[in-house]
Amino acid sequence: MLVDTKHIPAYNLEKAVKNPERGVKIRRKILENNLKKRESLINLPYRNYDYSKVLGACCENVIGYIPVPIGVAGPLLVDDKKYYIPMATTEGCLIASTNRGCRAIEKSGVKSRLISDGMTRAPVVRFPSIVKASDAVTWIKDTDNFAALKLSFDSTSRFAKLQKISTHIAGRYLFIRFVAETGDAMGMNMISKGTECCLHALQRHFPEMEILSLSGNVCTDKKPSAINWLQNRGKSVVCECIISSEVVASVLKTTTKALIDLNISKNMVGSAIAGSIGGFNAHAANIVTAIFIATGQDAAQNISSSNCMTIMEPWGQNGEDLYVSCTMPSIEIGTIGGGTILPAQSACLDMLGVRGPHEDIPGANAKQLARIVCASVVAGEISLMAALASGHLVKSHLKYNRSYSGKSALGLGLSCGSVGSCDR
Amino acid sequence: MLVDTKHIPAYNLEKAVKNPERGVKIRRKILENNLKKRESLINLPYRNYDYSKVLGACCENVIGYIPVPIGVAGPLLVDDKKYYIPMATTEGCLIASTNRGCRAIEKSGVKSRLISDGMTRAPVVRFPSIVKASDAVTWIKDTDNFAALKLSFDSTSRFAKLQKISTHIAGRYLFIRFVAETGDAMGMNMISKGTECCLHALQRHFPEMEILSLSGNVCTDKKPSAINWLQNRGKSVVCECIISSEVVASVLKTTTKALIDLNISKNMVGSAIAGSIGGFNAHAANIVTAIFIATGQDAAQNISSSNCMTIMEPWGQNGEDLYVSCTMPSIEIGTIGGGTILPAQSACLDMLGVRGPHEDIPGANAKQLARIVCASVVAGEISLMAALASGHLVKSHLKYNRSYSGKSALGLGLSCGSVGSCDR
Amino acid sequence: MLVDTKHIPAYNLEKAVKNPERGVKIRRKILENNLKKRESLINLPYRNYDYSKVLGACCENVIGYIPVPIGVAGPLLVDDKKYYIPMATTEGCLIASTNRGCRAIEKSGVKSRLISDGMTRAPVVRFPSIVKASDAVTWIKDTDNFAALKLSFDSTSRFAKLQKISTHIAGRYLFIRFVAETGDAMGMNMISKGTECCLHALQRHFPEMEILSLSGNVCTDKKPSAINWLQNRGKSVVCECIISSEVVASVLKTTTKALIDLNISKNMVGSAIAGSIGGFNAHAANIVTAIFIATGQDAAQNISSSNCMTIMEPWGQNGEDLYVSCTMPSIEIGTIGGGTILPAQSACLDMLGVRGPHEDIPGANAKQLARIVCASVVAGEISLMAALASGHLVKSHLKYNRSYSGKSALGLGLSCGSVGSCDR
Amino acid sequence: MLVDTKHIPAYNLEKAVKNPERGVKIRRKILENNLKKRESLINLPYRNYDYSKVLGACCENVIGYIPVPIGVAGPLLVDDKKYYIPMATTEGCLIASTNRGCRAIEKSGVKSRLISDGMTRAPVVRFPSIVKASDAVTWIKDTDNFAALKLSFDSTSRFAKLQKISTHIAGRYLFIRFVAETGDAMGMNMISKGTECCLHALQRHFPEMEILSLSGNVCTDKKPSAINWLQNRGKSVVCECIISSEVVASVLKTTTKALIDLNISKNMVGSAIAGSIGGFNAHAANIVTAIFIATGQDAAQNISSSNCMTIMEPWGQNGEDLYVSCTMPSIEIGTIGGGTILPAQSACLDMLGVRGPHEDIPGANAKQLARIVCASVVAGEISLMAALASGHLVKSHLKYNRSYSGKSALGLGLSCGSVGSCDR
Repeated sequence: MLVDTKHIPAYNLEKAVKNPERGVKIRRKILENNLKKRESLINLPYRNYDYSKVLGACCENVIGYIPVPIGVAGPLLVDDKKYYIPMATTEGCLIASTNRGCRAIEKSGVKSRLISDGMTRAPVVRFPSIVKASDAVTWIKDTDNFAALKLSFDSTSRFAKLQKISTHIAGRYLFIRFVAETGDAMGMNMISKGTECCLHALQRHFPEMEILSLSGNVCTDKKPSAINWLQNRGKSVVCECIISSEVVASVLKTTTKALIDLNISKNMVGSAIAGSIGGFNAHAANIVTAIFIATGQDAAQNISSSNCMTIMEPWGQNGEDLYVSCTMPSIEIGTIGGGTILPAQSACLDMLGVRGPHEDIPGANAKQLARIVCASVVAGEISLMAALASGHLVKSHLKYNRSYSGKSALGLGLSCGSVGSCDR
Repeated sequence: MLVDTKHIPAYNLEKAVKNPERGVKIRRKILENNLKKRESLINLPYRNYDYSKVLGACCENVIGYIPVPIGVAGPLLVDDKKYYIPMATTEGCLIASTNRGCRAIEKSGVKSRLISDGMTRAPVVRFPSIVKASDAVTWIKDTDNFAALKLSFDSTSRFAKLQKISTHIAGRYLFIRFVAETGDAMGMNMISKGTECCLHALQRHFPEMEILSLSGNVCTDKKPSAINWLQNRGKSVVCECIISSEVVASVLKTTTKALIDLNISKNMVGSAIAGSIGGFNAHAANIVTAIFIATGQDAAQNISSSNCMTIMEPWGQNGEDLYVSCTMPSIEIGTIGGGTILPAQSACLDMLGVRGPHEDIPGANAKQLARIVCASVVAGEISLMAALASGHLVKSHLKYNRSYSGKSALGLGLSCGSVGSCDR
Repeated sequence: MLVDTKHIPAYNLEKAVKNPERGVKIRRKILENNLKKRESLINLPYRNYDYSKVLGACCENVIGYIPVPIGVAGPLLVDDKKYYIPMATTEGCLIASTNRGCRAIEKSGVKSRLISDGMTRAPVVRFPSIVKASDAVTWIKDTDNFAALKLSFDSTSRFAKLQKISTHIAGRYLFIRFVAETGDAMGMNMISKGTECCLHALQRHFPEMEILSLSGNVCTDKKPSAINWLQNRGKSVVCECIISSEVVASVLKTTTKALIDLNISKNMVGSAIAGSIGGFNAHAANIVTAIFIATGQDAAQNISSSNCMTIMEPWGQNGEDLYVSCTMPSIEIGTIGGGTILPAQSACLDMLGVRGPHEDIPGANAKQLARIVCASVVAGEISLMAALASGHLVKSHLKYNRSYSGKSALGLGLSCGSVGSCDR
Repeated sequence: MLVDTKHIPAYNLEKAVKNPERGVKIRRKILENNLKKRESLINLPYRNYDYSKVLGACCENVIGYIPVPIGVAGPLLVDDKKYYIPMATTEGCLIASTNRGCRAIEKSGVKSRLISDGMTRAPVVRFPSIVKASDAVTWIKDTDNFAALKLSFDSTSRFAKLQKISTHIAGRYLFIRFVAETGDAMGMNMISKGTECCLHALQRHFPEMEILSLSGNVCTDKKPSAINWLQNRGKSVVCECIISSEVVASVLKTTTKALIDLNISKNMVGSAIAGSIGGFNAHAANIVTAIFIATGQDAAQNISSSNCMTIMEPWGQNGEDLYVSCTMPSIEIGTIGGGTILPAQSACLDMLGVRGPHEDIPGANAKQLARIVCASVVAGEISLMAALASGHLVKSHLKYNRSYSGKSALGLGLSCGSVGSCDR
């Protein structure tokens, strides 16, 4: 009633009523009054949830929560350690398929390497002329000036470490891309703070410089871009594994030759024909997104984070074993901040042994999580590619107009069984 | 125990124990035994959830669910109707900001148009030579042959309607992109079925044709690609709205000029510099992803679905009002199938009046949902752009080394207040 | 003198003095007076050239001509006919290398197929709202309306045949891409005329439509673009050839395995890493540009025309023969109009048997020229790839600090000899 | 006869007969015997040309030369100096139009800045595993190791100066992009030499490293790529100029508002819709190509060299003046080597005062030429954009079915007059 009469702002309900859940309940009531079908919300759960960590941090105008089913794939052997991969998804067969990939990798395991680590933020500024803009480029490139900027930047956080600044000029506009390590945080807030600090320092030297925006899209956050593919963002990780011809046959139900053939025609030629930049894989995004939702990452960051090139090659003496690598240059990920602080999401990080800040080495948890994501993508790629490679062989023997089973495999119309059972 | 001794396959627990929740509970036990920190799962909820709709459809090896906080933005006026937008997210300030955008649009409302509707699937096939491959291209282009293929395709489902086939040749490889309406379903399964049927028909005419894979990445699903940007995928939607200079000042705390200026430098020049294809916007992916998770879409499909170009122009007699449009050519979305069948997700569709299949016009619900997504993106774009445009003005007056508030605005280091309160 | 005193406009000299060469001579005099080094022009030839075909057609403010050295590669066997390929270039070893490629193909020959033929022009128009813009999209998509537009379009030229119109919306902006056959002309002028005619027809139905420009860059002419790669422009051609393992060894000095290996790592993976759209080849542009200059094409159109994907595969029973294909979707080319009318350029078309309009089948000459270009690219690709593949083997045996020969091979620091002699 | 009987290899004719022209003549004879139409070559000139500089350097199997008409545009005021721009082209109206642009710039002049200078070469190498590949990345990033590599690199030429090495990993493949200043040479040969030297040094540390190719397409040479757009290649140049509203009206026959409007809809929105990376301009390639052919550059390098973003903004107190900038990040150009050594081409460099190596500052000539190219592009852009902007206004008043004049304007169907006469 007090809300209706505007005595309490709706967004502040939780504070007003002290008990967050009661606040949520009242907001649902108000919302129901405004909906055509008042009973719509009945199936949207809201009870028994600790809203204290959500409020003021993760969500506003809260009306409950969406339960996203979570399953587990694995164990996945990464650098000689076993991991059970939590995946939150509503896509049937995704976990079963990834799980099959894990089984294929079981013996040899995945090797991972972190190639670089640096979150980015690129403000756009404007000068009165290209002359001034190019002066600024020169100034920024100077080693001493960079050192001064780094001092400013690094002072804004205990974990922020400015690594590099790259400049991109467009007439009198300048995009200044700051690259920094950000400890175990995904780092967008941290780097924004440091960047803003540097901008003010820069403005002292170039008073005519206008700061148009803290983000000028050259960062690039949550949009497809060549720059993240080429110059990385967040963690750049590479993984590889070798699968014996026996396992290819017994677990993946196909041959090394068929897989390599398909990898070239689909993941190389196909993606090239489609005009893809960064999408040289079968379905990295599926695995990335499921782990991101499970572990409280920003799910919208799967756009750059799913950039991946999958390479398959013949291996071993007679070339019948399979070598697979996945290269993922821009995994934006963290183990502190954002959704990682919520209880369930935190539990999933715990499952992987990477919850919160690393005790000894800042950043080590986030880096390890990035490696796990990439290794899981390897498992996912192997399994779907195998399903596709064997698919037509199997299917061509079936009468076509049989009724499809209700179950689908990754949207591909394959029955779930063909991607391997969930059994270990 | 029976699982440990392999008498019951782990993936089949639910069936074996009859009660799905008990199955989940046992699986958690088994998993806990394998984890280093056995207590990891304590905070991962699993009780009081109806697993019957999950099993065999949305998830395997289930161990519970991830609660993603959900809030509401709006009302958002779209084509003269009010909508309350459910957004599931863990990104602080996203809903508050979108809500502010809704308020800015309140008076004039958003107009939407659906430009096209067609899910796609592009298998890769191979011929012995370019001669045969080009014969196939010619054959497919023939009107009568297309009609025959359409007959096959459309027979596979009551809702599937083949619209177009485009061919992309690469040497002796051929990528055949099927485009079809799929009713209220997002449509990947439906179109895969129809595509497979056509492939078999095609194979009868071209027995030398090898089907390498039902998906050759020219579809393109869940990977960045120019083809979806240029030739659409799923729903292609455009929205526009006009905001008076008064509202720009009072609600958005900035000016039309500053917004247009920023839109050019960031969303046009910036994205062009970054080498983006399809990412000419500020943060469409944030809104798309939050609605996708809330309404049970395939969250990994936000990659193409977030393709968006935001255009801002001066409007009105003196050019001080603001015209904004968002163009989104590839929203992959549905109101039946996949995660949409789960109770909470279904409730969110209900909130928007688009749950399940449309009673009279197949596809009308999915189309309407796509329009709502695009309109919500308009709200999100306006608000973030305004926050960025006014940001530096405001911030430059602040002493720099003040302590940052814990709250962030969309990862931009702005305090949440600056993007507008949640109050209506 | 009369020019100096402005009695005769400098650009009209030729007309004023009747004799074009004298006009050119006078212009050179005037120019020399303005140059710091008056003797600069001495080595720029201008005598003994028939300017009558240049004036008012190909060049203005003429001061002479640039002699570009021309050599010949071949014979190149294309679809069982021998061609001698004229190449105008200043890049050392390019012709020698292409010639070696021709020799490698000598026995089996190249097979070519023309997949499609259609020049494009895409004006940008603007409507007062997305509502009107989407109405226009609907109107254009209507079969009857298309027929009416086609009637208008085709009336503007005897050779123009409108094939298709595709629309690309961006808010209230609309890009309308007209695709038409244009006989033996490259066709830009012809299609511009037809397009303009259609725009006026369209404007009668949509009086509020503003025509912003006859070209809105979605054409796309002389700029990199995904649309030409995906939807073709001009001629779309595919070529293939098979080379026996013996020839790979004897002529190309390498192995099938090494070539395929390199093709994947360089032309597939490398170009994908570089963020290329359409550049999945080694040096198609070299061959395209040299033939374009020789045959009077618009050399700036090599940008789209050089789009090419080179695929190499093992062939034959033991997989030791080499299968190569080149796919070139956007060769913008003609045998009439532009520079093709000049005597020397015309002679080169004559060498290939494709000078001027085809006598019986309009367009047949231009199409044949496109096939020859693509076949020549095959020769060029094979030879450079072989040079690169064998390069490191050979070079690693050399002492490094030897003095390099002055001659380079395609800018790769290889000595010219290694790419094969010019000898036949 | 000796050739026919294979006593003298055809490619060696010039040496054998001592007199190069006689060699060319004999080769033409042989060729004529092989052609269907023996008289084809009659109009292809070959006399009175000094072949001594061509042989062994620029062309093989020479049969004469192609005269490309050359005209002059200008004077163009760049950084307060006047230049007459030599343009070799067969495209009608191109020079007239560029000339009009020069006139529009006459008063204010163009300002230019060189942002960076560095030719690139990126070999592809392969390791037995990602572990070794990432070790190599780490090794190369080390400051001391870079210094050692630089020592090797710089020793291979007096002018080569290694600036930077960037690494791009793809599984066990590594693309190592060397960036170096190369004096006044375009630099491909120079950098290839240095790169090869470094590779051998690297191989000593990583004996398991396989050198697959000196070029792995990440360079990227003569192919569209995001990497050259983002990380530059050759010279990166920015130019700007301001044109008063009076000149916009009197010379360009349009308004500042119309130009800015068109620049956004065509060069920004249009190119973004087309999926262009680097093609945010109207026709930079036309100007680049014409100057490249005139000055003996490698014309196939216009692909990256034409990358350009044109920005137009309102200027002056009332915003009615026009501000234009062109940003060209990858101009691959030189004043020594390749075709620059030929007499006519050399004369054109002389016209611009940048022939050969700069006497005092190595590289200064090539840099200056790059600035002139970019400034000329500004002139070209202004003029064509003006023609397009005014086009529809003018044309809509014409009766449509009038006969077109034979003359075209840049393929746009505009009569040549509309782009401004050649008169100064």
